[in-house]
Amino acid sequence: MRLFCIIFFLLFIINLSFGQKPDEKVIRDIFDNVLTSNTAYNNLEYMCEHAPGRLVGSNESLIALEYLQNYFEELGVDTVFLQEFTTPAWKCKNTEVSILSDNSEILLRADALGPSPATTPGGLIANIIEVQGLDELKNLDQKYVEGKIVFYNRPVDMKLVNTFRVYSSAIDQRYHGPALAAELGAAGVLVRSVGTSIDTFPHTGSTGFKEKKIPSAAISTIDANLLSEALKKESTLRVKIIIDAEELKEVTTYNLIADIRGSEFPDEFIVVGGHIDSWFNSPGAHDDGIGCVQSADVLRVFKELGIDNKRTIRAIMFMDEELYQSGGNAYADYTKSNNIKNYCALEADAGGFTPEGFMVDASDSIVNIISAYQKLLEPYGIHYIKKGGSGVDINPLKSFGVPLMGYRTDSQRYMDLHHSANDSFDKVHIRELQLGSGNMAAIIYLIDKHGL
Amino acid sequence: MRLFCIIFFLLFIINLSFGQKPDEKVIRDIFDNVLTSNTAYNNLEYMCEHAPGRLVGSNESLIALEYLQNYFEELGVDTVFLQEFTTPAWKCKNTEVSILSDNSEILLRADALGPSPATTPGGLIANIIEVQGLDELKNLDQKYVEGKIVFYNRPVDMKLVNTFRVYSSAIDQRYHGPALAAELGAAGVLVRSVGTSIDTFPHTGSTGFKEKKIPSAAISTIDANLLSEALKKESTLRVKIIIDAEELKEVTTYNLIADIRGSEFPDEFIVVGGHIDSWFNSPGAHDDGIGCVQSADVLRVFKELGIDNKRTIRAIMFMDEELYQSGGNAYADYTKSNNIKNYCALEADAGGFTPEGFMVDASDSIVNIISAYQKLLEPYGIHYIKKGGSGVDINPLKSFGVPLMGYRTDSQRYMDLHHSANDSFDKVHIRELQLGSGNMAAIIYLIDKHGL
Repeated sequence: MRLFCIIFFLLFIINLSFGQKPDEKVIRDIFDNVLTSNTAYNNLEYMCEHAPGRLVGSNESLIALEYLQNYFEELGVDTVFLQEFTTPAWKCKNTEVSILSDNSEILLRADALGPSPATTPGGLIANIIEVQGLDELKNLDQKYVEGKIVFYNRPVDMKLVNTFRVYSSAIDQRYHGPALAAELGAAGVLVRSVGTSIDTFPHTGSTGFKEKKIPSAAISTIDANLLSEALKKESTLRVKIIIDAEELKEVTTYNLIADIRGSEFPDEFIVVGGHIDSWFNSPGAHDDGIGCVQSADVLRVFKELGIDNKRTIRAIMFMDEELYQSGGNAYADYTKSNNIKNYCALEADAGGFTPEGFMVDASDSIVNIISAYQKLLEPYGIHYIKKGGSGVDINPLKSFGVPLMGYRTDSQRYMDLHHSANDSFDKVHIRELQLGSGNMAAIIYLIDKHGL
Repeated sequence: MRLFCIIFFLLFIINLSFGQKPDEKVIRDIFDNVLTSNTAYNNLEYMCEHAPGRLVGSNESLIALEYLQNYFEELGVDTVFLQEFTTPAWKCKNTEVSILSDNSEILLRADALGPSPATTPGGLIANIIEVQGLDELKNLDQKYVEGKIVFYNRPVDMKLVNTFRVYSSAIDQRYHGPALAAELGAAGVLVRSVGTSIDTFPHTGSTGFKEKKIPSAAISTIDANLLSEALKKESTLRVKIIIDAEELKEVTTYNLIADIRGSEFPDEFIVVGGHIDSWFNSPGAHDDGIGCVQSADVLRVFKELGIDNKRTIRAIMFMDEELYQSGGNAYADYTKSNNIKNYCALEADAGGFTPEGFMVDASDSIVNIISAYQKLLEPYGIHYIKKGGSGVDINPLKSFGVPLMGYRTDSQRYMDLHHSANDSFDKVHIRELQLGSGNMAAIIYLIDKHGL
């Protein structure tokens, strides 16, 4: 009996020393690390200061890739590589929108929607039709629309609590509005910026053209109010739109991939990522520089704490979420061609404010397994883990049956910033960022340790 | 049977029309109202811009009282009055702290702690002893301490998740440090600011002197690091502290009280409040202008929606939470003398960021009743209602058995601002403020309707 006890005790000690710490203790170690580390915050500052406006195909997008590639190499992870692919792209050098009245020209704060065609250098000059949405435009006599600039001016619904829902309440105007106006013979489109603040920032974004493309731009909410007031006084006023933009048939670009090899199942990849591109007009701090540096931080934490991951932890900095989602698709294609098993994937692309929870896009049984970790993460701000959408870049993996997750944070301030110059580094709070890194590292640790 | 059905149907209709809407619908109405109202936000802007530094006894504290008194009168509530009382007070006109070296004087950013005594106009000049806490000071030879300036420089513990706990990790130095140093014969005290950021803002606060008071000030965390480095190079350097401050034996001041009379139990008061005073160095946006304007907004919402409250809803803008907590005590005394029944009380004094929950300081059965409302408030951001401390100003009501509640919000940014000039209006997000007004109004509506 005594011998049995001694053997048991020895096994217990060996077990503990080989990484069998209780989960609570490892998670506490993770947060002790992230809450005293400036690394991710400093990485984000670099990206916002030295590579703002890093739309796919831009020089800034390459600067950001190179910076994080160096970061991973210096961190000493097992593999760092650029996954090359080609994609169409678009670049915008200048947008100018102004109200023309008899003797003056009032400049409005505007940014072209992607991928708006350019105007002639002299600009498009036309009369304006203000509508409150697509239905109103559809009901107009087509002759009245032809040759005009359609101005979509329905405000967002501020009564909704989650600002992603506020955003959804008016996004149809930006996404489908230009295509509809083009179909009806309009010459151009202005859209009221889709955001939660009345301010001077134009919020750009992608628009879904069909065959015909017409010059299209977002104007700030203050300027939308101003234009609407001006139209009430003078319904025949004209607006000038100058857009200097160019579609690029094909650019060569890259996803950045960094791995820490797994000790038991190195061929099973747990993906964690964000997208490295941002709109041309934006430093892209919350969208989505922060998701990149938090994902990169997960690898740092695993390295620094010496966590023995069974599966390979793979950080991906996806290119081109904003314009054509080509990076996410390219990674899915690469995965398929190379017969790579993605065990699961987590994306952080919903802002980097105080943690709220995780969404899980998987079978009910996997949702149940992951939801059970909520209790362990509640002390660190996670108050839901539930079924729901994950992220744009990892979504193409869904067709291969990969369980997907999306990290979610407090949304209240996000839509003030989204797709605008206001999405700058100073809007990021270091502790909110750190808590995100910690929760992402913790949930990946739990999934790797206990399996799905 | 048919007659019975008709009567039943008529009663049902009457019931609905007389305010028997489902709770979900009334709560949705409350949020539709607050999420489209700028009133509370504008009130806060006024307080921060026109009455910053509104410590009890100051002219600014009276400006803030007058402004909100006018607000309540214009709102047309049933009763508005100033509840007069007297209290000792303290004012600080100037704080200057500098490092004296051979040829130069390096100014540190500092604010006196309340109620620090003044120095002579020429200032207190002495050598410095740096310690990491009270225990270290206690273990020093008293002779070594005598005549010196004690510099408490232990940083906060940033590994803690809730920043109120981060604050608690070093608050002993500010609250008990000066009394201990005075007892040991020190000439003055400097304290590293208790905050979550390394920056240039001194964070003041109250200190608990015993018989002996010595000049005491907080210096910013950047300046604390600078002073500590300077001491490493030259341990005998001297520091000069100039404090121009004055204790006031007695000032006459006021709590501001506004009531909407209850239709069934007008003599039962449901209290909702914040404190109108702020530290002399701070606009007091989050601490606690926001709690005041949110409490004031609860009355606005009840008025505008025509909610038929059974009990009297009473908003109180408490004076002097910061220095001597005299307003809360004065209201409790007034309540006792006038035999007033406070049915329950809710205080908002923990910042005005995105809602988190409510703490309830009451019997378990009452905690259970109120916790059951969590489900109704979850769509609006409330993810806990649980037993715990409420607020400093309403706490004196506890001895009368009044159920108490405290509104809680996301803490991550709060301790960057607290008790400093950094607690300014621009740190407040309108939607975060609005969601607070809404949740406070909603929980008061539920308690009034269903009882405790």
